[in-house]
Amino acid sequence: MSTTLGTDEVTLRQVDRWWRAANYLSLGQIYLLDNPLMRQPLAPEHIKPRLLGHWGTTPGLNFLYAHLNRVIRQRRQSTLYIAGPGHGGPGMVANAYLEGTYSEVYSHITDDEDGLRRLMRRFSFPGGIPSHAAPETPGSIHEGGELGYALSHAYGAAFDNPDLLVAAVIGDGEAETGPLATSWHSTAFLNPRTDGTVLPILHLNGYKIANPTVLARIPEEQLTALLRGYGHTPYLFTGGFDDEDPLSIHARFARMLDEVLDHIAEIRAGAAQGSSERPAWPMIVLRTPKGWTCPATIDGEMTENSWRAHQVPLSSPREDPAHLQLLQEWLSSYRPEEQFDDDGQLSKEVASLAPDGELRMSSTPHANGGLLLRDLVLPEVADHGLAVPEPGATQGAATATLGDYLREVIRLNPETFRLFGPDEVASNRLQAVYETTGKQWNAEYLGPEVDDHLVRAGRVMEMLSEHQCQGWLEGYLLTGRHGVFTSYEAFVHIVDSMFNQHAKWLETTNRISWRRPIASLNYLLSSHVWRQDHNGFTHQDPGVLDVVMNKKAELVRVYLPPDANTLLCTYDHCLRSRQLVNVVVAGKQPGPQYLPLEEAQAHCARGLGIWEWAGTEEAGAGPDVVLACAGDVPTLETLAAADLLRRHLPNLRVRVVNVVDLMRLQDAAEHPHGLTDRSFDQVFTTDAPVIFAFHGYPWLIHRLTYRRTGHPHIHVRGYKEEGTTTTPFDMVMLNDLDRYHLVMDVIDRVPSLGARAAGLRQQMADARLRARAYTREHGEDIPEVAEWVWPGAGSPRSERHP
Amino acid sequence: MSTTLGTDEVTLRQVDRWWRAANYLSLGQIYLLDNPLMRQPLAPEHIKPRLLGHWGTTPGLNFLYAHLNRVIRQRRQSTLYIAGPGHGGPGMVANAYLEGTYSEVYSHITDDEDGLRRLMRRFSFPGGIPSHAAPETPGSIHEGGELGYALSHAYGAAFDNPDLLVAAVIGDGEAETGPLATSWHSTAFLNPRTDGTVLPILHLNGYKIANPTVLARIPEEQLTALLRGYGHTPYLFTGGFDDEDPLSIHARFARMLDEVLDHIAEIRAGAAQGSSERPAWPMIVLRTPKGWTCPATIDGEMTENSWRAHQVPLSSPREDPAHLQLLQEWLSSYRPEEQFDDDGQLSKEVASLAPDGELRMSSTPHANGGLLLRDLVLPEVADHGLAVPEPGATQGAATATLGDYLREVIRLNPETFRLFGPDEVASNRLQAVYETTGKQWNAEYLGPEVDDHLVRAGRVMEMLSEHQCQGWLEGYLLTGRHGVFTSYEAFVHIVDSMFNQHAKWLETTNRISWRRPIASLNYLLSSHVWRQDHNGFTHQDPGVLDVVMNKKAELVRVYLPPDANTLLCTYDHCLRSRQLVNVVVAGKQPGPQYLPLEEAQAHCARGLGIWEWAGTEEAGAGPDVVLACAGDVPTLETLAAADLLRRHLPNLRVRVVNVVDLMRLQDAAEHPHGLTDRSFDQVFTTDAPVIFAFHGYPWLIHRLTYRRTGHPHIHVRGYKEEGTTTTPFDMVMLNDLDRYHLVMDVIDRVPSLGARAAGLRQQMADARLRARAYTREHGEDIPEVAEWVWPGAGSPRSERHP
Repeated sequence: MSTTLGTDEVTLRQVDRWWRAANYLSLGQIYLLDNPLMRQPLAPEHIKPRLLGHWGTTPGLNFLYAHLNRVIRQRRQSTLYIAGPGHGGPGMVANAYLEGTYSEVYSHITDDEDGLRRLMRRFSFPGGIPSHAAPETPGSIHEGGELGYALSHAYGAAFDNPDLLVAAVIGDGEAETGPLATSWHSTAFLNPRTDGTVLPILHLNGYKIANPTVLARIPEEQLTALLRGYGHTPYLFTGGFDDEDPLSIHARFARMLDEVLDHIAEIRAGAAQGSSERPAWPMIVLRTPKGWTCPATIDGEMTENSWRAHQVPLSSPREDPAHLQLLQEWLSSYRPEEQFDDDGQLSKEVASLAPDGELRMSSTPHANGGLLLRDLVLPEVADHGLAVPEPGATQGAATATLGDYLREVIRLNPETFRLFGPDEVASNRLQAVYETTGKQWNAEYLGPEVDDHLVRAGRVMEMLSEHQCQGWLEGYLLTGRHGVFTSYEAFVHIVDSMFNQHAKWLETTNRISWRRPIASLNYLLSSHVWRQDHNGFTHQDPGVLDVVMNKKAELVRVYLPPDANTLLCTYDHCLRSRQLVNVVVAGKQPGPQYLPLEEAQAHCARGLGIWEWAGTEEAGAGPDVVLACAGDVPTLETLAAADLLRRHLPNLRVRVVNVVDLMRLQDAAEHPHGLTDRSFDQVFTTDAPVIFAFHGYPWLIHRLTYRRTGHPHIHVRGYKEEGTTTTPFDMVMLNDLDRYHLVMDVIDRVPSLGARAAGLRQQMADARLRARAYTREHGEDIPEVAEWVWPGAGSPRSERHP
Repeated sequence: MSTTLGTDEVTLRQVDRWWRAANYLSLGQIYLLDNPLMRQPLAPEHIKPRLLGHWGTTPGLNFLYAHLNRVIRQRRQSTLYIAGPGHGGPGMVANAYLEGTYSEVYSHITDDEDGLRRLMRRFSFPGGIPSHAAPETPGSIHEGGELGYALSHAYGAAFDNPDLLVAAVIGDGEAETGPLATSWHSTAFLNPRTDGTVLPILHLNGYKIANPTVLARIPEEQLTALLRGYGHTPYLFTGGFDDEDPLSIHARFARMLDEVLDHIAEIRAGAAQGSSERPAWPMIVLRTPKGWTCPATIDGEMTENSWRAHQVPLSSPREDPAHLQLLQEWLSSYRPEEQFDDDGQLSKEVASLAPDGELRMSSTPHANGGLLLRDLVLPEVADHGLAVPEPGATQGAATATLGDYLREVIRLNPETFRLFGPDEVASNRLQAVYETTGKQWNAEYLGPEVDDHLVRAGRVMEMLSEHQCQGWLEGYLLTGRHGVFTSYEAFVHIVDSMFNQHAKWLETTNRISWRRPIASLNYLLSSHVWRQDHNGFTHQDPGVLDVVMNKKAELVRVYLPPDANTLLCTYDHCLRSRQLVNVVVAGKQPGPQYLPLEEAQAHCARGLGIWEWAGTEEAGAGPDVVLACAGDVPTLETLAAADLLRRHLPNLRVRVVNVVDLMRLQDAAEHPHGLTDRSFDQVFTTDAPVIFAFHGYPWLIHRLTYRRTGHPHIHVRGYKEEGTTTTPFDMVMLNDLDRYHLVMDVIDRVPSLGARAAGLRQQMADARLRARAYTREHGEDIPEVAEWVWPGAGSPRSERHP
């Protein structure tokens, strides 16, 4: 593989011409409505009326692309290009066009003058394409609209792809973000034998929007210390600041890139031969002027190599003849007449720098992961269900049951499934997975006494950074694999914005025919708001559901399985799904189990249902009151309330409804899982009071149901931002979600109960006071609550549904 | 200041005894219900029934606290202690108790055996205190429940406090988070003359919950390279791994700490004398065993110096006599009988290590910032209002007007107000502030051609990390100063979780009598969803409003000023407020201005109001339809719709309502700003259709109004997750929020209009198609929309209100 000889001048000229062609096309996208080959002198009508785009980062991206093409061809190295810098879109589009991929996926963007015109026009134009390396851009898995995730995505792509090189360009603006700053530490996790290679390329062009960047303004010695501290061997390159001949710059960079790839090859060869030394992977620092090759000054102000080159350096070529003239010169400097022939076709000499087929970075299947996606081999749910002879009689930890199942998922899919989390897989009681795999770790080992389940190659990825976990998983999914992210419910807010961006990516790909569906992004939030006994108020926030629901209904699913078997069925469903974000909230604490597996399957398939065994309805007569619940803790309190009502008000007809799939509550017109009004009314009635015990913030239920006929009768209890370090029952009491309060709510809302219920109401209020006093004295929950189980015996086991 | 002599043995013994006393109290808090001085042999009934707490990090925190006390006394150095590691609560509480502060603020926690019993019992106990360095903990501004912000908070506290030393302990778990990883780069911003000193202390105890930490498992050479790369001079200390005598460990650490403080003093002296060299500030790496001083093994498993020491190392002393015995030995190892006298009072020798008064870290006013808070000197709003002779006739950029005002705020408050943002102050058109200040920057300078408004000491803090900006500002506010965070609306989601934590902090402090109110956290979101022409879909998300609304109503305010003068009045109000989070969304793009200053003041004071000048109601008769709007773009479209209706359906009685203060929509019982039902009904009616054009996701309006009588008639248009890079008007059309669609909505909802309106409806639908086609052809908005202004002339200028 090693190439100690310098790159020949013919090839260097080819690289230079590719670079010019890409720069020309990029600049054309920003400015030109017409006259794409500059056949006529530029006139105002050739210029777009609104100039939207970003030049600053683009020439650097193009430079790297051209050079990578050379080595890809030479080494036949499968490569994925991640354009981290924001607004690098024009460059990525230009290169995809030069490689022919763009015309393959967009047949009207032809390889001629018309095609060029369309290409330039559609960029950042109404009805066209965005200014980022968006889903519309072939070869991209990373839009870079929001900054921070280039390296996490790159590592996610590299996991389990030992033959893949991921060239991850990191802008020096992006490098200031928190997520990017910690993602460097991925070097402590990558396995050099079973995973691919990530080549970070820190592009120091020195400026953000209006400021210099930190990493460009610290002494070089400090910078290299930092990069060595991240576990890398930095290769530094500077070019473009003086009048060095471009060919000389290309020759120097080509030489360095060869060295870098030789170094990588050496590391990989060592690892293949079993070296367990942790490599200091090479990375590149590319220092160039911002806006490289744009006019040095514009209107008397320094532009190239300044923040002024960030966006559209020449602001008014349509209005200002001097600007127009300058633009003409700037465009001409790339010598379009040499790079394109008379028909507008890319010159053969330039075109031949492109690798062939899927070696083209714009055409790698890794950037269209659905092409590589294989269904998971899933174990039989039936082999993992918990035996539940009677509702409430068995105790079990839902996530422990799921852990058994996930162990088998991992066993059956040893190369295409990973579990990501910030050091919480065991704490979330999924530790059964460690019977078949371990936590991947490539920093120092101290031995089995303390290195619990640490392995060089494993399916569990744990780092105390939700950003890193989410970013890794996104990269893994986008390149055609499967995974789950387990997190504390409150702290998944840390990645709210990453979720938003991923959802937007999915939504956009749904409208792009050549993008193939990828596996869903699955969350498991098992340390939830109601059971933060020792963590307290900071760890209590179920609001992620509200964030999720703002995205398109076609994309998001929220499940609140009340027990182990429903969690199992839910996850079996999630792992089969595509193009979704599945948010599953389920407790890790031992709790009562309600449904045997077959009933759980049926219940999950319906998404919600009446639990007849828990209610006191008579056949034919409607209920006096509906107790609805969603979430494990609310379900427990609701059943306990139903038990109290059965014993104290035996004539009251109570219906118990459990909701697993929250989206069922929405209108069928609003969400694909939504119930029709008719079905909704059958379950919830149109006139009976509904006391809804909900896992999250109460108004979410109102938001989902405000159009339903019976909505005025729905009364929701949920988390109302009250909490501290206290007992589980005290937590529900603090938020009026406890069994006693639910009974009081029923009494308050069923006026027909009249005086006979007043005594019970007082009894419930007293029970709350007693429970509270007991807890404050003893530090634990009152036994009548802590030991309560659903009486069960004799209640018919069946379920009705719409 | 320099102390080259070693610390005398008497003092070292005192430090050691303080450490033991603090460790004893910390352990007691985790385990003991009673028998706080071990006067009797430990019995099961002395043990808490639920063991909640975290030992692992605590002895290290106590060690540092004891040593810092020595140097604080010696140098009379005002010091703030930030306990970064999660769950360090017991240690911080213990030290506050030893310093006497705890008994000062909680008078029942007395300095005797009873007080000790109460202190231990209340920790992580129902009705007691949380396990973190929560607001309840004197001396804390940093709870550390969610990890990642210790250093950002520390720097925020240090800004403009040149005499303050902030000792920021960073856990090696926390160090893996993204926000922490980038916050190291704060060294490039701190001014060594006008700001205080931050002393980061990276506590490498090696483990998180169940995993080793990255920074503890990379070679030392790599670690020090990393820290040098962050701009620091690392001082490394290791202790506790062998049987070195504790006094020897103390002596070594004391010597090093003296060196570190001497080094700091040297840097500060140089800076005072005008040195502009950027210092490589010292920082400490403290490597100790996790759970230091706990039993080496428990149940045959290595505990000290392993992840098993993270939480409660001895799980069952109440049930298992062997565990009880081990706990007895462990507690006794701290020799409580030496540290406390017979009455349970702290021994005088130990107590005298504490500094006096406000030099006690638990009693520094910087940790109770309200004590130091001074009102801002605010300029006259009247001096900054925009002249608006007629509604819609003037154009202006709201944020530019605010920028003028903020320039004066900065001028009048040169040491207590800062503006934070990720490189967007100028982009958000606040650049007027640069007439009086600059961007603080302490990395390299390249000269005025490119260093735009960069200064060594300035009021504007820009780094491309929302985490950093938010963390800095939080630290600044919590220590008694004022500030504003400007961010892109979509990307403020990056700090959703930080907002959550800050809101929880504020909420808790509201209930703590000794905590004084601090200045509000003010957001200015001025690059919002509707004007992301060149940024596109990734930059479009108004969902932060939904996140904010989940917190307690007493804490959160959301303002949507429609123009410059309303923005000005809103911000004048926000800068005077306390203990709130104010979210203000306002456009940076030039747009029509509606209200002269006095009307803007009245409108903002009311929060919402009927714009009679924009409607066509007759006195006395109710409206046929209400056009409500909130947000600048929705207001523009609503007025344009009102204009169309006035021209085409002159007999239709239209009422235009503008909402600035979103919380007015809520019920008075739900929010302190909420309208009574009577007032709400007066404005919105109970039966007229309301077409509500809203800035954000539409369901938020339903969530706020679902209890109102007229709610079934409220029809909301807002952002429905449609967008791309396109023109402003195309964006509103994509989401059916445009003027034409609003008119169609009116026609659809006022059946009495009958056939005469059908033609107009078709006309509107055609206008949409025409506008869309024009935009796709020309790349800009159709002139009839782009040039539209409110016709104004002749319309009476007045406003009605509830």
